[in-house]
Amino acid sequence: MTKTRPHSAVFSPTPDSHTHGPGAIAAAIASDPARHGWMEGAPPPADRLVRISDGSAWAFPQLRWSFSNFRRLVPTAEVARGAGPVRTLPVALRDDIDALTFTPLPNSGFAGPISWADSLLANFTDGILVLHRGSIVYERYFGVTGPATRHMLMSVSKSFAGTIAAMLVAEGTLDEDALVGALVPELAASGFGDATLRQVMDMTTALAYSEDYTSPTADIVNLVTACGLSPGDEKGVRAYLPSIAKAGTHGAAFTYRTCNTDVLAWILHRTTGKSLTTLVSEYFWQKLGMEEDASYTIDSHGSEFGGGGMSATLRDLARFGEMLRLGGAIDGQRIVPKAVIDDIGRGGDPAKFAPAGYTTLPGWSYRNQWWVSHDAHGCYTARGVRGQMIWVDPVAEMVITRLGSHPLAGNGNFDPTSLPAWTAVAEHLMRG
Amino acid sequence: MTKTRPHSAVFSPTPDSHTHGPGAIAAAIASDPARHGWMEGAPPPADRLVRISDGSAWAFPQLRWSFSNFRRLVPTAEVARGAGPVRTLPVALRDDIDALTFTPLPNSGFAGPISWADSLLANFTDGILVLHRGSIVYERYFGVTGPATRHMLMSVSKSFAGTIAAMLVAEGTLDEDALVGALVPELAASGFGDATLRQVMDMTTALAYSEDYTSPTADIVNLVTACGLSPGDEKGVRAYLPSIAKAGTHGAAFTYRTCNTDVLAWILHRTTGKSLTTLVSEYFWQKLGMEEDASYTIDSHGSEFGGGGMSATLRDLARFGEMLRLGGAIDGQRIVPKAVIDDIGRGGDPAKFAPAGYTTLPGWSYRNQWWVSHDAHGCYTARGVRGQMIWVDPVAEMVITRLGSHPLAGNGNFDPTSLPAWTAVAEHLMRG
Repeated sequence: MTKTRPHSAVFSPTPDSHTHGPGAIAAAIASDPARHGWMEGAPPPADRLVRISDGSAWAFPQLRWSFSNFRRLVPTAEVARGAGPVRTLPVALRDDIDALTFTPLPNSGFAGPISWADSLLANFTDGILVLHRGSIVYERYFGVTGPATRHMLMSVSKSFAGTIAAMLVAEGTLDEDALVGALVPELAASGFGDATLRQVMDMTTALAYSEDYTSPTADIVNLVTACGLSPGDEKGVRAYLPSIAKAGTHGAAFTYRTCNTDVLAWILHRTTGKSLTTLVSEYFWQKLGMEEDASYTIDSHGSEFGGGGMSATLRDLARFGEMLRLGGAIDGQRIVPKAVIDDIGRGGDPAKFAPAGYTTLPGWSYRNQWWVSHDAHGCYTARGVRGQMIWVDPVAEMVITRLGSHPLAGNGNFDPTSLPAWTAVAEHLMRG
Repeated sequence: MTKTRPHSAVFSPTPDSHTHGPGAIAAAIASDPARHGWMEGAPPPADRLVRISDGSAWAFPQLRWSFSNFRRLVPTAEVARGAGPVRTLPVALRDDIDALTFTPLPNSGFAGPISWADSLLANFTDGILVLHRGSIVYERYFGVTGPATRHMLMSVSKSFAGTIAAMLVAEGTLDEDALVGALVPELAASGFGDATLRQVMDMTTALAYSEDYTSPTADIVNLVTACGLSPGDEKGVRAYLPSIAKAGTHGAAFTYRTCNTDVLAWILHRTTGKSLTTLVSEYFWQKLGMEEDASYTIDSHGSEFGGGGMSATLRDLARFGEMLRLGGAIDGQRIVPKAVIDDIGRGGDPAKFAPAGYTTLPGWSYRNQWWVSHDAHGCYTARGVRGQMIWVDPVAEMVITRLGSHPLAGNGNFDPTSLPAWTAVAEHLMRG
């Protein structure tokens, strides 16, 4: 796949035969970063360079390399795992998952059922792991991604910030009804000023800010540029956020906007005196027996890109998801209050979610920076552009984590070949 | 200590009462980065920012923070420790070391003997560890440096590249008499073209290149800028190196020039097909039970700053030094051929070293990117500006590792309060 893609951090073109259906499988194989030799050579030839300054880090297919190598592209802060022992994930591999078949949702580009194995290629998967009752039943890596790879999580990062915020609300350190302008005075005159913390957590703020990944001039590009991930004025995320204006009525409807999470990160930092990096380390990475340090990209002022800058391994995401599946405690240690887990699972108001028009997510909601299905299994999920995911299915006792580098940004492009796969494997595992 | 220091990556002013003698002790306390709040705040106030773009990362006292936080400042590549177990360092702390006294060398600024404890402040130490017969007998951290801190190693990095080069020569993969221009054709027309690999390894190349740390216009500044560590044209180290011209006769005399190590890194990469990051991981970090991943700073083309860009923990440096002290094998595993260790210990030609005029290092030599004392204990050492060090004393069965952030660059500024300290503690430990 040699089509030239525009160079903008989150911009992605419209779907075509290389991004959907059988053509996507061929394109995934052709774009395998291990075949392209990105950044290989002493030094790499000019056409193999991947960098932020010319936007190539976000161009397809280069991003299939960059998503596994972000610390090589920008300054990062380490989410320390500490000196404790690794919590071993038992392995009970199933060889019958690759052959599972399922029928994709409409607009997948496939005419009929496809296999689980084919779906991984169709989704430009970099890594996928399925835990059932705490054991690894499936684990696969593609391209330049492996078990130790700290892969960009994009908006899966949000769910870490959201969970911590919900914990601080639950313990009373934060009041979910507090106004953002009171919590962070620098935001008082911005569109966030009279929004509540809860509205930020659930993304029901009303803002003059576009998250349209198909527009190269959307505000999300300005956010990512301020964070230092796209070429331009790296002013720092906390210099950018106060410029966002209000448009409409806070609390009326869910609208997915990454800037909310960066406001949340600012609130957490101001309230606790600890950076998001430190909080994620102390709340999760030092407690869950993680295999590897994680990281955040940081801007010119040292602030994390809270809405999308975290990198972690596939297995460490699974350890986090498994703790959630178990109700917030693992190996006798309470990590997250049960009330917070229950609150995530109950979700937000589907009536406020529906107008956003996510055709692949009917009846869903958004709560504490998690996407909540309201399905019979009570599934909820962390989702990041281009295929990052933590999927928790409490009824099937299953957690799926996935890393990806899809040519298109929005999950709606690959939900049709993903969501039915999770259902199929859940039912398969429940059959024993 | 609030004196303004010029902002250039390696430039350091002339010695004064804040850098030598009792005034240095007071300045070390006043410049403790934990007291200054560098990069603290949500976001940090303007006068607490530390960054590459304005040179503040290298300004004193900001560098007391930046040396412990380099991955937050620039892109880095991870030197993976792998998934193996940590090799525990036995602890047998001695409480009698702090009170040891010794007489500094001339020009220390002290009129008489000082204590070991005072010397650590006088040297702006960030961390120091003494191993005796493999056990930790002394370990101290200062400022923002701790056991898990990956601290900038500066030219201690060179000794890793040099050891690997010596190993490849010993096994016959590289010919030490090969010409650089044949090994890396891009350098054929440069001053390195007709130098031998051995001359590069031992820094007896003759080049129109100044390493003078007291000159803000020295060539070392151009090298560090090309590497992306100082503001300016980040052209990439391997775009810069071919511009260095010859001046004199290769092989005639030792002249310390960091660019040699970056040529060496290029030769290693071209020869093995593996980056320095990968080589250090495979040769050492995956084999020695290191506690933490290390890292290299990398430039806009993904090339490491081989001459000074490595960061690692104090303890992991000690694990490396202990392996060398034991003759290259540890726990029954051969890491470095005994012949290479012996070659380092024998050193280079002191007659070629003497003209360089290191008054604190009489009778010394330089071999395989190590500084060799030719003293009665056969000590050799890796040295980095501002206080980074691995010291191996085979006779005393002692290894000392030190991290520092001295206001002056060159080791000659703090050798007077360091070298006699190593002798004093060696004699003390040998007495039992």
